[in-house]
Amino acid sequence: MFIPDMESGPLATENPLLKIMRPRSIAWLGASNNPAKMGTIQLHNLLQGGFDGKVYPIHPTEKSVMGLKAYPNAAALPEAPDIAFIVVPARVVVGIMEDLGRRGVKQAVIVTGGFKETGEEGASREAELISVAERYGMRFLGPNCIGVMHTRQAVNTTMFPICVLPGPVGLISQSGSYVTQVQMYLQRRGIHISQAISVGNEASIDVVDCLEYLAGEDDTRAIILYLETLRRPRRFFEVARQVSRVKPVAAVYVGGTRAGARSGGSHTGALAGNDRLYDALFRQAGVLRVFTLEDLYTAGYALACQPPLRGTRIGIISHSGGPVTSMADACERCGLEVPVFSKPLQEALRPLLPGTASAANPVDLTFGMGHSHMTNTLPRKILESGEVDGVLIHGIMGSSYREVFFKRFEETGGLSMEDIAREQEQGLTELAGIPKETGKPVICSSFMDRDQDDCTRLLQDRGVPVLDTPEQAVEVMACLGRSAALRKL
Amino acid sequence: MFIPDMESGPLATENPLLKIMRPRSIAWLGASNNPAKMGTIQLHNLLQGGFDGKVYPIHPTEKSVMGLKAYPNAAALPEAPDIAFIVVPARVVVGIMEDLGRRGVKQAVIVTGGFKETGEEGASREAELISVAERYGMRFLGPNCIGVMHTRQAVNTTMFPICVLPGPVGLISQSGSYVTQVQMYLQRRGIHISQAISVGNEASIDVVDCLEYLAGEDDTRAIILYLETLRRPRRFFEVARQVSRVKPVAAVYVGGTRAGARSGGSHTGALAGNDRLYDALFRQAGVLRVFTLEDLYTAGYALACQPPLRGTRIGIISHSGGPVTSMADACERCGLEVPVFSKPLQEALRPLLPGTASAANPVDLTFGMGHSHMTNTLPRKILESGEVDGVLIHGIMGSSYREVFFKRFEETGGLSMEDIAREQEQGLTELAGIPKETGKPVICSSFMDRDQDDCTRLLQDRGVPVLDTPEQAVEVMACLGRSAALRKL
Repeated sequence: MFIPDMESGPLATENPLLKIMRPRSIAWLGASNNPAKMGTIQLHNLLQGGFDGKVYPIHPTEKSVMGLKAYPNAAALPEAPDIAFIVVPARVVVGIMEDLGRRGVKQAVIVTGGFKETGEEGASREAELISVAERYGMRFLGPNCIGVMHTRQAVNTTMFPICVLPGPVGLISQSGSYVTQVQMYLQRRGIHISQAISVGNEASIDVVDCLEYLAGEDDTRAIILYLETLRRPRRFFEVARQVSRVKPVAAVYVGGTRAGARSGGSHTGALAGNDRLYDALFRQAGVLRVFTLEDLYTAGYALACQPPLRGTRIGIISHSGGPVTSMADACERCGLEVPVFSKPLQEALRPLLPGTASAANPVDLTFGMGHSHMTNTLPRKILESGEVDGVLIHGIMGSSYREVFFKRFEETGGLSMEDIAREQEQGLTELAGIPKETGKPVICSSFMDRDQDDCTRLLQDRGVPVLDTPEQAVEVMACLGRSAALRKL
Repeated sequence: MFIPDMESGPLATENPLLKIMRPRSIAWLGASNNPAKMGTIQLHNLLQGGFDGKVYPIHPTEKSVMGLKAYPNAAALPEAPDIAFIVVPARVVVGIMEDLGRRGVKQAVIVTGGFKETGEEGASREAELISVAERYGMRFLGPNCIGVMHTRQAVNTTMFPICVLPGPVGLISQSGSYVTQVQMYLQRRGIHISQAISVGNEASIDVVDCLEYLAGEDDTRAIILYLETLRRPRRFFEVARQVSRVKPVAAVYVGGTRAGARSGGSHTGALAGNDRLYDALFRQAGVLRVFTLEDLYTAGYALACQPPLRGTRIGIISHSGGPVTSMADACERCGLEVPVFSKPLQEALRPLLPGTASAANPVDLTFGMGHSHMTNTLPRKILESGEVDGVLIHGIMGSSYREVFFKRFEETGGLSMEDIAREQEQGLTELAGIPKETGKPVICSSFMDRDQDDCTRLLQDRGVPVLDTPEQAVEVMACLGRSAALRKL
């Protein structure tokens, strides 16, 4: 394939993100005692989130900012902090970076917008910024970014609270909204994040640096990218090809259409490229390309938690005929097979099923009161048979179901709600262990989300993705297969 | 096109669903004083839901069932009720229908499974059932269905509570799960339903009857179908072509793949047909075909609430660069245009935007504290310009945003949270009026769902769809366009 001949940046001897993602000390420029200022909101958020490093507000006039001792300028700081965090008007950013450089600060996050993304004047301001940073050997995120989140380190420089649990997915985004606004969306879906980086205009640190950094982070088992452009496509290709051997990488790229490219240009000053060229680049680098945020986040979580899908044969289990049929149809539409089980396997399953149920695949238990076969015996027997490469399950229901169906049992003394819940939790823990034991993925769907049903939450928190619809579970399974094929697993 | 020459059923002089969806009296077979029985759970649910008609439990031995006077058989009933609801073992269903027929009951809902979907024996039992019903002039839903929901009439014969608000979407489904389990899913997305019908094996009443019925229901402004097969494709075509002139119809059809067809066969005894044939049938009947439940429900709600999209030109508004770029890219990928606004329109918008914002389309307000232009002035000006056929808006945030950003304003006495909330609600009410005024659709997306943010809820409840992601909003907009084109609007 053709790769445009662009200069590769120098390989950082030490990746600047090591300090940016785990700063022990931060110079903070742009916070004041006015709670309406963005920099104040962001600092408030950092402190609220439990950051326990040192913060040195720099303010021209105030003696203290939000209860912290303030310093008039960088020269007055008691030490050269690990990073500077900058959210001040665009016209003063260059001067401030000069001061910070002189004080020995080596890393910065520049939130301020009004650079390359706004036209010529901004572009020349951005060039000055780069030149100052190079003079002092500084590396920085941004400008025009929203900062970073490190879920296990209580580092969150954005203005949004972290809503997700610490998890295995690392996120690199050319949109700040896809790090911040998206938090509540990810929370609802039980998608757990390790670290998230908003790269903005990438004047110094770009997605390639971030990719190299996350490749070395043990908390991150899959990396997902939101891309409007690649500023160093050749270097991206080299790095991504290596990283994808170690951990799965997935990307959305929105710069390949005219409308997407034009929009991205006024967003982060990006120059986008040909869609097919990017498509080939991703494929050859072993990067799974997806086309929606939904697929990016949900497939990212599955890639991080589940074994690869090393074939195309899928087993389907549910107690509902509609969802298994939707799954079967969706499988075939995206290149997965739903093989009819062998006679011996069907005979082995038969005793576990009610008389009216189908054992052929899909396995439709038909609606009944018990779930235990569905969550345990069936998926295990089906995966261990060697007749499929992965299993889809729809409709494991716990608290929502108990409320509707079992509550009156308890009232009549027949069964205890707690006993049922405990038994079900144990079953789900066993189910969550099956992918590791068998080396084959299990993906679920349920119409009840984690706030509506404890089974959805229990599975998601144990690394079994539970999607909102049968078709979305199939899509995620297909992504596991496509990623494994690209990575030659 | 070729349409298989299948017999059309006789046109019902009075559609049996008129009684089934609004029964004033029900004979109930299968409830007892054992709370674990399905029939008991369903009756409990009907009564809990506030049904205020008469219910006559029929039970061979009990004198009363759940506090209601019970009758030993149909002959003993004080009147011939509007419908019979039947959830008893398969082997006694035919005999019971005979008794009901003799008593003058003309409509029934048969939940019991174990008929055509289970093989030869079941198929012959189903044939007997049909013959008894014909002898007495009875029509029935099922067997092997889950019953019906009528949100405004407090009629719910299923075992799930109705979770959605009464709304404009009518649902016809060959899967019971897509009526019942899906309730909490629809609730979370603010998709409001008028009536829902589970058709099961369609031995007497089929989707065509349901379509004819819902066509005449004023509470239903769009009809959505989950289909594994069409048992009367020719008649479906004739009816759907007429209905789609009056109100939009959308369908998922899962019987067109080998895996989907096999699965559907053991679910509802359906014989599925060629995918391309069905595709052509839907297209020529003016029925929008979609491929996922997500699209079916979300596009269905948009079709019911929003004007048709009569062209392909889309305006995009947000305060976030990522989402507008995702929307622009997704638009082009599904055949929608994002035209650059004319100079006069850009100049008209400019005073409403901050200095760094782009007015070209997408309109990216860049992140700031105020939302009012985004929800009102901008969409109105853009739609009234005549330069676009519909508008997409991402990221209208209310309570979630106020919690994070404004709370401290109030603490410092600057602004009142209630004032902001009130102003915002007024703005959203105005926004919700714009589609009606301009005859052009507005579709939104937000990462905060209706439980996380009051703006999402306020918009959804006023008929403006708010989708979970920017791409899903585009997909729904594209569905509005495809439906309008099929319906020749």
